[in-house]
Amino acid sequence: MGDMKKLIPFFLAAACALSASAKLVTKTIEYKQGDTTLEGYLAYDDSISGKRPGVLIVHQWMGLTDYEENRAAMLANLGYVAFCADIYGKGIRPADTKAAGVEATKYKSDRALLRLRVNAGLDELKKNELVDKSRVAAIGYCFGGTAVIELARSGAELNGLVSFHGGLDSPMPADGKHIKCKVLVCHGADDPFEKPEDLAAFEKEMRDANVDWRLIKYGGAVHSFTQPMANDNPPGAKYNKRADERSWQDMKNFFSEIFN
Amino acid sequence: MGDMKKLIPFFLAAACALSASAKLVTKTIEYKQGDTTLEGYLAYDDSISGKRPGVLIVHQWMGLTDYEENRAAMLANLGYVAFCADIYGKGIRPADTKAAGVEATKYKSDRALLRLRVNAGLDELKKNELVDKSRVAAIGYCFGGTAVIELARSGAELNGLVSFHGGLDSPMPADGKHIKCKVLVCHGADDPFEKPEDLAAFEKEMRDANVDWRLIKYGGAVHSFTQPMANDNPPGAKYNKRADERSWQDMKNFFSEIFN
Repeated sequence: MGDMKKLIPFFLAAACALSASAKLVTKTIEYKQGDTTLEGYLAYDDSISGKRPGVLIVHQWMGLTDYEENRAAMLANLGYVAFCADIYGKGIRPADTKAAGVEATKYKSDRALLRLRVNAGLDELKKNELVDKSRVAAIGYCFGGTAVIELARSGAELNGLVSFHGGLDSPMPADGKHIKCKVLVCHGADDPFEKPEDLAAFEKEMRDANVDWRLIKYGGAVHSFTQPMANDNPPGAKYNKRADERSWQDMKNFFSEIFN
Repeated sequence: MGDMKKLIPFFLAAACALSASAKLVTKTIEYKQGDTTLEGYLAYDDSISGKRPGVLIVHQWMGLTDYEENRAAMLANLGYVAFCADIYGKGIRPADTKAAGVEATKYKSDRALLRLRVNAGLDELKKNELVDKSRVAAIGYCFGGTAVIELARSGAELNGLVSFHGGLDSPMPADGKHIKCKVLVCHGADDPFEKPEDLAAFEKEMRDANVDWRLIKYGGAVHSFTQPMANDNPPGAKYNKRADERSWQDMKNFFSEIFN
C-alpha cells in the first residue's frame, strides 16, 4: 500500500488546508418568480479566484432552513458556488410538519408552478458572476429531490442532478424525454414513503427517455437519512450517519465526473 | 475551482506515476480444495514494500481467463495483492458458452461445494505473506458475483465484497445472518438475467440479517456490463464502458472505506 496510502492522507490534508484558508462568504438574496418574492441563500469561498461550478440546493418540506445553509457552506468549502433556492416564498417557513405538509402539497400537486419556482432559483444561481454557467448541478432533499427532478423534466440546462431521498413519482412521465443532464438518485433502501411502484415507474421513465441515470440504495436507511433533525417522527424518517456520509461521498464523485 | 482543480490532476498524475514505477509480478499458483487441484493467478506490485490489503477475484462462467488476470493487474497497480481464484479446477476452462453453462450450473446448484471452492481461494490469498490479513476483500463477476456473496454467506472473514452483475438469488436466505462484511452490489438496471423477485429477495435477505449493504443500479446497463468480450450474445449481456468505469470507481471508493 506504501505509495497509495501516502496519497490519500495528502488529498485529505490538502482538502482540510483548503477549508482552513477558505473565506466563506454567505448572503441572503431576494429574487422573484413572477410577482412572488423569494429569499434564497448564497455561499462561496472568497479565497478562490475565478469562475467555478455552481450548485443549486432545494430544501425539504420545512422550507429553507439552516440545514440547507450548512450544506451550502459545505459545498462552498469544496470550491463551488452554492445557492439555496426558496420554493415557498419569502417569509414562508412552516412552523411545524402540518404546515409543511400543506406547503409541500401545494407544489407537488402543481408541478408547473414547482418548475417555475425551481427554475427561478437556477436562473438566480447562473446570474452570479462567479459561476461557470457551463458547469451547473442541482441537488435536493426530500421535497427538494422531487423539485430538482422536475427542474430536469422541464428541460433546464444542467450537467447533473442529485436527489437525496426525494419523491420520484411523476404525473407526466413522458416529460422524462426533456431531461438533458445526468441523474444520481440516493435512496434509502428502507424508505417507507417511496412506494415500490413509484420507484419502478421512475426507472421506466428514465429507461424510456434514455436518460443517463443511476440509483443507489443504501441498506438500513429510511426517509430523510441525511437530516440530523429527523428523529423518526413521523416514523420512517430518521437520520442515518453512515448513509449520510456515503451519499455525500457519492455526490462528490458524481460532481467529479460531471464537472470534468 | 482553483485549488480544488489542482488537487485532482495531482492525484491522477501520482496514480499514473505509481503505475509507471510499478514492478508488476504475476504468477500462476496451484492449490487444492479437498482432492481437487485448482490453478489461480496472483498479481502484485513489487515496488511496494510491506503488507497491503488483499483482493480475491472470482471469475465469470467461462472460468479463469485473461479478463480476470487483467483485473488482477489493475488491482496490483492500485497497490493491492490480487488473487484470481479458480472455482472449476485446473485445466477446466470452458471452450464455449454451452460448456460454461454446464460448469456454472454445477456450482450454482451445489452452493456448499461453491463455498468450499471460493473459501479455498480466500485461504490461498491470505497465505500470501504480502497480504495484511485484517484487510481483505472479494470481488466477482457474473457467476463470480454469486460466488463472493456465497463466500460471505459461509461466514468468511472479510472486510467487504463487491458483486459486478452477479446472480443474487439464494436457496438459503437465512444464511444472510452469517455475513460479517460490508456488501456492495453493482447491478445493471436493465439486466434481463436478474429477475425482479430475486433482487427483492436479496434485499430482504440483507435487511433481515441487518447486513451493511448498498446496491447501485446503473441505468442503460445490462448483464456483463464490465466485460468487453460481451457482445450481446447471448442477448442481454453486453459491455457498457460508462457503467464499467463508474462501477470500478465505486469499487475503489468502497475499498477506501473498508480498508481505512
